Amino acid sequence: MLSRVLLLLAGIALATLCQAADDPLPAWRDGPGKQRILDFVRDISTPGSSGYVTPSARIAVFDDDGTLWPEKPGPQALFALKGLREREAEHPEWRTQMPFMAALRLDSKYLQEAPDDAVFQLLAVAYAGRTQEAFRSEAREFIGNARHPRFKQPWARLAYTPMRELLAWLRANGFHNFVVSAGSVDIARILASEAYGISSDDVIGSSVVTTLRDEDGKPVLRRLASVHALNDGPVKTLSIDQHIGQRPILAVGNVRSGGDIDMLRYSQGSAGSRSLQVLIKHDDFERDHIYDEKNRASLDAANANGWMVVSMRHDWRQIFAFQADAQ
Amino acid sequence: MLSRVLLLLAGIALATLCQAADDPLPAWRDGPGKQRILDFVRDISTPGSSGYVTPSARIAVFDDDGTLWPEKPGPQALFALKGLREREAEHPEWRTQMPFMAALRLDSKYLQEAPDDAVFQLLAVAYAGRTQEAFRSEAREFIGNARHPRFKQPWARLAYTPMRELLAWLRANGFHNFVVSAGSVDIARILASEAYGISSDDVIGSSVVTTLRDEDGKPVLRRLASVHALNDGPVKTLSIDQHIGQRPILAVGNVRSGGDIDMLRYSQGSAGSRSLQVLIKHDDFERDHIYDEKNRASLDAANANGWMVVSMRHDWRQIFAFQADAQ
Repeated sequence: MLSRVLLLLAGIALATLCQAADDPLPAWRDGPGKQRILDFVRDISTPGSSGYVTPSARIAVFDDDGTLWPEKPGPQALFALKGLREREAEHPEWRTQMPFMAALRLDSKYLQEAPDDAVFQLLAVAYAGRTQEAFRSEAREFIGNARHPRFKQPWARLAYTPMRELLAWLRANGFHNFVVSAGSVDIARILASEAYGISSDDVIGSSVVTTLRDEDGKPVLRRLASVHALNDGPVKTLSIDQHIGQRPILAVGNVRSGGDIDMLRYSQGSAGSRSLQVLIKHDDFERDHIYDEKNRASLDAANANGWMVVSMRHDWRQIFAFQADAQ
Repeated sequence: MLSRVLLLLAGIALATLCQAADDPLPAWRDGPGKQRILDFVRDISTPGSSGYVTPSARIAVFDDDGTLWPEKPGPQALFALKGLREREAEHPEWRTQMPFMAALRLDSKYLQEAPDDAVFQLLAVAYAGRTQEAFRSEAREFIGNARHPRFKQPWARLAYTPMRELLAWLRANGFHNFVVSAGSVDIARILASEAYGISSDDVIGSSVVTTLRDEDGKPVLRRLASVHALNDGPVKTLSIDQHIGQRPILAVGNVRSGGDIDMLRYSQGSAGSRSLQVLIKHDDFERDHIYDEKNRASLDAANANGWMVVSMRHDWRQIFAFQADAQ
């Protein structure tokens, strides 16, 4: 009798384990949204299925700030502020000039609400003259030591668990994942690598103008204060076409600025291929942040085009690895 | 007695096979040049060796026209000419305007000697107004059907065998290979994929300005006649930094225009890492083409900086897969 009970219990334990092992997205709550992702990826990657797509065309693009990790504030804003502070004395004009004045006076309060182009301009000016190599190693060190003001965690630990699962599962199914950031490409590369293991050439982002100079007989790249490209809105589509040379079939962004609408629309236009567009909604006050979009353009576009909208509060069982599960 | 001879013969055959299997670059003739490549790659990729480099930093960049396949003429020039011919009637001004006049009158004779920027400008103008998708599929079809005027082979079969071996062996040793072309990125992508299996996002090149338009409710990218970036000379360094975000440790280019000098110099400046620069010299009249560089700047830079110079005539046992071996 006892042995039969033990066998039964062992059977149940095994069945549970198998179920968990079968679920590639355990941090996503079961429901129609999760099912839509599962169906899409299986259809795309199963030979013979109606939606089968050859591996070389399985391109997925992800916004980063607010989609792969929290954006209020992002590390770029904090790193820009550090650079401004260090050069404040040399630039008395910043005391009366926007957006420098606001950044230096209001600090992270301003930077949390500032538009992406203003933050990137601050970063460009704050580090003008640095070599690319010096800028990258300084940013890497800063990001390694910085803690998120609310979560008190290093930035690399702020990867959203459901997105880590999704990226890993896509990779296992032959997808090539790219990060398409409105922020500095150099900073996005550091975080994408540390939090997601994504290599630097798979990250597209905003950039400053650089010059190639001969210094002591060596070629050196130095950053100028001018913005080369602000990779937001329609520019994301142009840069995807330029960098990848193929139209993505999966695009993921988030609700806040409307900066991902064009990229999601572009991915939907794939000729003859099924595609999926996902929009993350920041509606979890307790575990993340809560914010919306003033003109609701992203959600309106989602409704009009049949995109999937993810509620962080309802659709994500776990948000960060360091938080306890909220089953 | 017979059996002993057979055993001996079998032994010799086996030893020869093993030697061939041990040589990752059989199309390269043995000598100091080949040895330098072998030593470099083994040193970089052997854990514990003095020059060991972590896999994520094993970045290799290759020029394409004249380095991976013949460039006199390249398919870009022939495809530009096709587009010009098709629109000649709409543009009577081309009959008296350079470089259109020269291209239309002198045909491939002009295009064979024309500077890279003129050829790219012709291509930009010839296909202005096309969608990116239409341009790419038209170029793919053209390249699939075209034959090299001298070798009478499809372009995809014009891959240099020694470079195929080198790229494959680098990949097997954890290197990430990129193509950095002065030609159209779209055309370079087609050839890199068909001749070398290199994916489109691993190709950097010249590009035209594109616009994102809404057409019948769909986002469409259309090409304009203006050049966005001519990816040659110092621009190759800037685009490598922008696209890859890391300094390569191996760079390969060829003697003709001097357009690869900056890229090779840049790869040599890696802090704390061994690097290798290779320059291909077109000195094989019988099997390829023979040409030099007017001011000898590439060879002078090779001498001054200790770069490896490859003589196609002496260092390559085989050039194309379709040619008989010249042992």
